[in-house]
Order: sequence, then structure tokens, then C-alpha cells
Amino acid sequence: MTTLAERAEALDAADPLAALRAEFVLPPQVSSYLDGNSLGRPLRATRARLGSFVDGDWGTGLIRSWDAGWMDAPVELGDAIARITLGAAPGQTVVADSTTVMLYKLVRGAVAARPGRDQVVADTENFPTDRFVLEGVAAECGLEIVWLRTDPRTGPSAAQVRAAAGPRTALVLLSHVSYRSGFVADMPAITAAAHDAGALMLWDLCHSVGAVELELDRIGVDLAVGCTYKYLNGGPGAPAFGYLARSLHGAVRQPVQGWMGAADPFAMAPSYVPATGIRQLISGTPPIVGMLPMRDMLDLIERAGMAAVRAKSVLLTELVIEAYDELLAPLGVELGSPRDPAARGGHVTLDHPSFQGLLGSLWERGVIPDFRPPRGLRIGLSPLSTSFAEVAHSLTVVAELLHAAAAP
Amino acid sequence: MTTLAERAEALDAADPLAALRAEFVLPPQVSSYLDGNSLGRPLRATRARLGSFVDGDWGTGLIRSWDAGWMDAPVELGDAIARITLGAAPGQTVVADSTTVMLYKLVRGAVAARPGRDQVVADTENFPTDRFVLEGVAAECGLEIVWLRTDPRTGPSAAQVRAAAGPRTALVLLSHVSYRSGFVADMPAITAAAHDAGALMLWDLCHSVGAVELELDRIGVDLAVGCTYKYLNGGPGAPAFGYLARSLHGAVRQPVQGWMGAADPFAMAPSYVPATGIRQLISGTPPIVGMLPMRDMLDLIERAGMAAVRAKSVLLTELVIEAYDELLAPLGVELGSPRDPAARGGHVTLDHPSFQGLLGSLWERGVIPDFRPPRGLRIGLSPLSTSFAEVAHSLTVVAELLHAAAAP
Repeated sequence: MTTLAERAEALDAADPLAALRAEFVLPPQVSSYLDGNSLGRPLRATRARLGSFVDGDWGTGLIRSWDAGWMDAPVELGDAIARITLGAAPGQTVVADSTTVMLYKLVRGAVAARPGRDQVVADTENFPTDRFVLEGVAAECGLEIVWLRTDPRTGPSAAQVRAAAGPRTALVLLSHVSYRSGFVADMPAITAAAHDAGALMLWDLCHSVGAVELELDRIGVDLAVGCTYKYLNGGPGAPAFGYLARSLHGAVRQPVQGWMGAADPFAMAPSYVPATGIRQLISGTPPIVGMLPMRDMLDLIERAGMAAVRAKSVLLTELVIEAYDELLAPLGVELGSPRDPAARGGHVTLDHPSFQGLLGSLWERGVIPDFRPPRGLRIGLSPLSTSFAEVAHSLTVVAELLHAAAAP
Repeated sequence: MTTLAERAEALDAADPLAALRAEFVLPPQVSSYLDGNSLGRPLRATRARLGSFVDGDWGTGLIRSWDAGWMDAPVELGDAIARITLGAAPGQTVVADSTTVMLYKLVRGAVAARPGRDQVVADTENFPTDRFVLEGVAAECGLEIVWLRTDPRTGPSAAQVRAAAGPRTALVLLSHVSYRSGFVADMPAITAAAHDAGALMLWDLCHSVGAVELELDRIGVDLAVGCTYKYLNGGPGAPAFGYLARSLHGAVRQPVQGWMGAADPFAMAPSYVPATGIRQLISGTPPIVGMLPMRDMLDLIERAGMAAVRAKSVLLTELVIEAYDELLAPLGVELGSPRDPAARGGHVTLDHPSFQGLLGSLWERGVIPDFRPPRGLRIGLSPLSTSFAEVAHSLTVVAELLHAAAAP
């Protein structure tokens, strides 16, 4: 029987995307980085991109660069994300704001577009900021939140949504890939369930985009929001993207009226008239510097193709589960993620009460996983920057430390 | 009599801050950059800062950098802006969002903190995004906007605010330095007028910060918002700052409830509990990359001192007015800014119907001013990066082109 390390070596040797790993900044101090689902590694090209931006578009172009590309950047970059990762036609996606702010704008716009309906369906397993935004909007707008209470090891089902949504439902807000378990919700069936109730469907794609193939247009999703600093490697706090299906451009109107979302930003008009297309989702001046790094990762994903990215992602999470079965289950670790690869996104959660105490030792060994209190080690696998060897090495170290901690 | 160029040369020779100009990226193609009030030039240090960030804090620190500084960056950088430019004690300023979004949050928070009052006082000369945000909030919250109609060549007066504000006024929102005329509003008297009516006072400092000395704490300002890509050289679309006086931390609550403004962001709590201090103004993940460039300019302003920055700013705008009197007034140009330096911020607006047609020729000559339709050339003077020679050269070119355009 081959060892875990040997199997990882064979997987790396057979990986058609293995060569792309050299495009990333790979410091020798970090032996295994397993937190690409929280913050993706930078690409080496990003350093040069930022440097030439300072001297070129900013330093030499100066304000002329607004006409030479910056004004169009939110939609042009949104279109690139849509084409490469979302399965969405141009003119429906924009890059702006933080995920939280974009979510607030979309939720407010969506519930206003369903007047007379006073409920919103969400999930207790939604990421906290989604729940917090929704609580705030519900209080502002006099809405009731109908909470699905899903099993933390999976995620919401279409049957749950059908049971919860009805003629009072304005909006269903759910995460496509659960931030804890990595469970992939059934987007087509749940979207259909929301639509059958006459509600709009808003998907949080933070843990999906760049890891899982998406088909927003084909499925008929209404609204979506996502994060660019996880699997799109946009850098800490990179701006979010928002998606609004073209059919809703007249109907959904977001509340933060700013000059950059106006029909003619430089008319200095006496009153706000929203832009007709997706630009209406913009409020303030586009965060141009913050938009730069993600372009390098989008280029790389486009070279690889999302189907190949997803295929490698599945093999990486499969190897985590193999390592779990072989090394960690015998030590009392529990698997917090689905075994079925079709129901699993780009990360795997392993639960054990001792994990919190091991984090310092893991970091000392150059092994950097994610940790979610109280006991979840999240193994986040960014497909283009993570090798199978990293997975085998890191989980072997976790097993060694756990074994040592359990020794009398 | 000396020529304009000779006077400019003498002013540069006597300028105690002249040596600091070498800290900026100064491409030879740009002979005169007069739009620092719209987008400040980058500093040379910014290129190195961004590069070492990619390899270091991001590429090597990876998620560990959240604990090693990024989590505190919004408040730590806000405190630096406060100390160096705002005249404000720590713990009241935060960097986050776009100016438009931050303004929305502050306006919403402020009007909710004055229940039972249904009017907001603002100025038709406020920058469009301020007016648009206010329109949106007024519609949401059932408020009436009482518009001051100030002369576009000046700005709002305390007498106007006293006449407009009363027991129905929740908030007064005004720009400290007018984006068109450069007029400096009387912050102490207007703030007192708002307070005498029982209203809160929110100042837009976009065209003030880094150009004009400020004393928010001493004056007793309640709320303020400002831009960091103008005189703080933060790069295109750099995040805004928001100021909320400590006395209001319990009373003003902003509406975009996100995990990073919660009391314990990583508790993954079932409900939103806002942080007690200024962190409550934060909504989403801090835009760390977008926050980097402004640090170099803040360092430079601290070296120079705001009093010296303002003193040079006054001399620069004085030279513009000298050049106007000598070269441009005879050609029919009108002065759109105050002659009194105490009532003038960091830019001077010159009005002539031919200016729009001259912009292309100015750019070809490497002269880059700002233009605001229909006829305003805004001469924006970023004190640390602008030389007196740039002013003399550019206005001489403007006069030559205007003369040529008027020739039969």
C-alpha cells in the first residue's frame, strides 16, 4: 500500500495545472498554506502590476486615466468575473464596495422590488455578516426573517425553502457553499423554489466563486454577491462583486445613491437619476487600486478554465478526506463536511476540541490552516496555488501534533 | 517689474517645503499638474510599499497578518489622519468604504439619533453625491430637505444656517471647502448654529483634508466624512474616512450592520451587537490594499506639519490670482473663487466659455488642470507636490491658448 505522501506525489505529477503554482508568491517559511478560502495567496505578477500602475496609469496618466479605463473598470472587471467564473453574460456584474455593503444594497433593493411582501427567508448557517445585514434591513423595513435551521454539517435544501417560502416572501438569501461545512446548496432547485413562491433569489457566492463552476444566467438567479479576496486572490479587503440579472435592471433599485451610479456622473445634476444598466449598483468612486490584484488571478483562471479548476479542487478535497480517514479519524477527529464530492465546495472542515490549542504549533511548522471556533479546522484548498504535497504534509503534521497532545 | 516666471522662481527658492516635491513621481511628460484636488500624485515610496506588501504582509504573513495589524488598520489609520490633519483625538475616526457609502451611513445614523425631527439642512452647492445620498435618505426616512441656495462663488454662511435650522432640524450637512469655488465655510459659527437648533452637524471635508488646517474636536463637530485620494494621495478610489465624536458613540448607530463592526467579529454570534467604540462605523472587511498608499502622504504631511502645508497652499493660490489678474482677466476670464485667502481653500476656479475647447491642447502641452462643466477650470494645488513654477508655466500656457483661440 502506498503512503499518503506517495499518493500526493503521484497526484502532483499527474496534475495538468501543476505548473501554474509557480505563478504565486511561495515563501519558503510557509510549508503548507490551507487558507485560500479566507485569503488567497498573491500572484508574482501582482507585484509588477502594482508597481507599473503607480508609475504609469496613476503617476503619469493621472486624472486622464479616468477616461482611459478607470470609469469603466467596475463593469469591465465585473464582466470578466462573470465570463470566467459566474456563467453570466456581460452587463450584469459590477465590482464595488465590501461584500457587506454590496449585500446591504442588494437586499434593500430586492425587498423594495416586492412591495406588499413582508418576509425574508434565510439560514442560521448563513455567514454572520449576511445575517447581520438582514437583521438590520428587516428592522429598517419592517420585515420578518424566516430562519431555516439547517444542519451545520450540510446546508439548506430545496424542500426547506419550499416549506418556508410563500406569498409573504419577498426574498430568499442563502449561501451557495456553506462557510463552515463546505456543503454546496442545490442552486437550481432552490432558485426554482423561491421563484415558485414569487420571491427573488439572492445567492452569496463568497465561498463558491473561483472554486466551483457557476451558471447564474442559465439557472435564472436574480441577484448574487461575492468576495474577491478568497479564491480570486484579490488581496485583503478587495472589493466585492454584485450581480443583478438584466431582467431586474428596471425593477430593483439600491438605496445608496451616489454620483458614480448616476446616469451622467459629471453632469453635476440637481437630482439623482440612476444609470439604466448595471452601473446603477455603483455608489461612490470605484476602488481602482483595490481592483488591481484580482486581475492576475482572473487571467490565470481563464488560462486554466473553471472546469479544470473545479476538477483539481475535487481531487484536493478527496485527498483531505483520505488523509482524514487514514490519520485523523483514529484520533477522534470528526468530519464536518460532506463525503460526496458533488455536494462539497473547495474546503473541508475537521472538528476536534484540541485544534484551537494546536494552532501555534502548526504556524511554527509553517502549516497555516483556517480555524473557526470552537473546534473547526477549515482546510481551504485554492486549486491553482495548492499542491497535493501540501495537503499530505500538513495533515500528517496535524496528526503528529494531535497524537503528541493526547500522549500522557 | 519682475515677470510671473521670475516671481515663481523666487517663491520656489524661498519655499521651505520645496525639497519634499522630489518625494513624488514626477513624469517628464507632465509639465504642470494642477488637479491634486481631484487625484493626488503618487509618492515614489508607494511603489516600494506596495511591492513589499505583496511579498511580505500578504504573501508571507498571509492570514496571520489580520492579527498582526490588518484588523486594527481602519482605526489606526483613522487615528493617524485625525492626529495629522483633523485636529481630533484618537478613537473617533475610521477608514472604510467610499465617501458616498460612509456619508450614507453617517447621515442615516445621525437622523435616527434625532427622533421626532423631520428636516435636514443642506446646500445646493454641496457636491452631487452628498445631495444624492441625502435625497435617497430623505425618501427612505420621510424627511424634508431644506436647501440653502448659496452663491456658487462663495458658500454657506452661519446666518443662512441660523435662518434655516430650527426645532424640526435633525442634521445640517455642508461642505467645508466648496468643490467649485474653494470657499471655506465658517466651521465654528455654522456648527454652533446647528447646535443652537438642537441639530447634529456633519461636515464634508473632501476638499479640506490635507489642504486646510482643521480642529474638529475644539469646534465640537459631531460627524465628518472625507476623501483620501485628493490631498492625501491615497490613489484612485482610496477608501474614505468617517469621524464620529466620542460623545455620540452610544447615540448614533449606522445602518449597514456587518461582521467587522460587531463587538466580536469572530464570535460568529447569532445576532449583531455593535462594537462600542468607533469600530461600529465599519461594516465589511477593511480594504487593506486600498489603504496602503495614503500612508506615505500622511508621513510626508506629518514631516512638513499642516501649518506649513496650509501656508504654502495660500501662497500657491495667491500666485494663481496674481497670474489671473495679470494674464487672464484681460482676456475675459472670471475669477470664481474668493480673493481673501482666509476664505479660500486649496483650489482656484477660473471661468471662461472657451476653456472646454482648450482642454485637449492643454493636455498636449503637459498641462493638466481640472475642468468642471460648463466653463470652470479648477486649478487644484496640492501643496507638497506643486511648485510655483508649475503654476506660472501653466497659467501662461492657458493665456497663450486663450489668446490664440480669440484671434481672428
